[in-house]
Amino acid sequence: MPTVSLPGVCVWLTGLSGSGKTSTADGLATLIRESGRPVSLFDGDVIRQHLSAGLGFSKEDRDTNVRRVGFVACEIVRHGGVAVCALISPYEAVRNEVRQLVGDAHFVEVFVNTPLSVCEARDVKGMYQMARRGEITGFTGVDDPYEPPKRPEIELDTVNHTVRENAERVFGYLVHMGFILGD
Amino acid sequence: MPTVSLPGVCVWLTGLSGSGKTSTADGLATLIRESGRPVSLFDGDVIRQHLSAGLGFSKEDRDTNVRRVGFVACEIVRHGGVAVCALISPYEAVRNEVRQLVGDAHFVEVFVNTPLSVCEARDVKGMYQMARRGEITGFTGVDDPYEPPKRPEIELDTVNHTVRENAERVFGYLVHMGFILGD
Repeated sequence: MPTVSLPGVCVWLTGLSGSGKTSTADGLATLIRESGRPVSLFDGDVIRQHLSAGLGFSKEDRDTNVRRVGFVACEIVRHGGVAVCALISPYEAVRNEVRQLVGDAHFVEVFVNTPLSVCEARDVKGMYQMARRGEITGFTGVDDPYEPPKRPEIELDTVNHTVRENAERVFGYLVHMGFILGD
Repeated sequence: MPTVSLPGVCVWLTGLSGSGKTSTADGLATLIRESGRPVSLFDGDVIRQHLSAGLGFSKEDRDTNVRRVGFVACEIVRHGGVAVCALISPYEAVRNEVRQLVGDAHFVEVFVNTPLSVCEARDVKGMYQMARRGEITGFTGVDDPYEPPKRPEIELDTVNHTVRENAERVFGYLVHMGFILGD
């Protein structure tokens, strides 16, 4: 069997807490693995466990965290690997820094555009309720801004589409762009 | 030109401060790049800039730092990439954790075995003098232990060999083991 060398890619899912970034990223990572490519998945749990210990919730620390995941994703892309990153990453400037670092041609920004009201109604972790009661501060969407991407490669609707459909849509884009071998 | 897929590898240089880890790692990274393989170099500067902000100098924080670099190296190796890591990494248990994580067959431990007296006489950054005067504490080799590797893949002598010779020796090992294409 001939070995085909495919270019590296960083898929960056951004959106509010509870928007569905992690479940979409999980579904996408499964599809990529099933296609035969290794994938590095960086979601909240992986990042907390392996990368972000020592950082707090100040804007500066949160920016450091986003830049750090971007740095690691960039190294993976340089080696021709696939990195799937799911972070709120609310600030446009830092997301664009990561895009520049990785390289525009290898960066796929996925805006998980679930309305705040829907995220808040889901409130899977009870965080919105805590933020509304003032028990936590600096919470994105409540008392800290979320800056939506201006030109994301993909925008997902999680209200009218299932996680599976959204994961397949991103996967289809990766195949179309030559990052993944199609059937 | 046929594409040949080579296995990933993590080269881990351990040794005292001033032993010559970074200069050896630099020379090795240059040889690997010249051979046509991308390489990720994690030395003190890169780690401080991109990975370790927020961590201090307690044993716990230093262990977290070593584990974190190991985690990133492991992801790179999974994608078939080459990671060269140069850290004092004084504790055997944590180095062995990293070895297990990356996988024995993809881990090359290089013991940069420069005697303490030589490192201290060089004292490039003036750190040994500060440690001896008690101005910094927990300094490896002075008031904190260095546990030498028991079975490193390679042991380097920086007193009787130049940086170039040592870098070439590690590079030759990587070629011999099939991680790099030889001429």
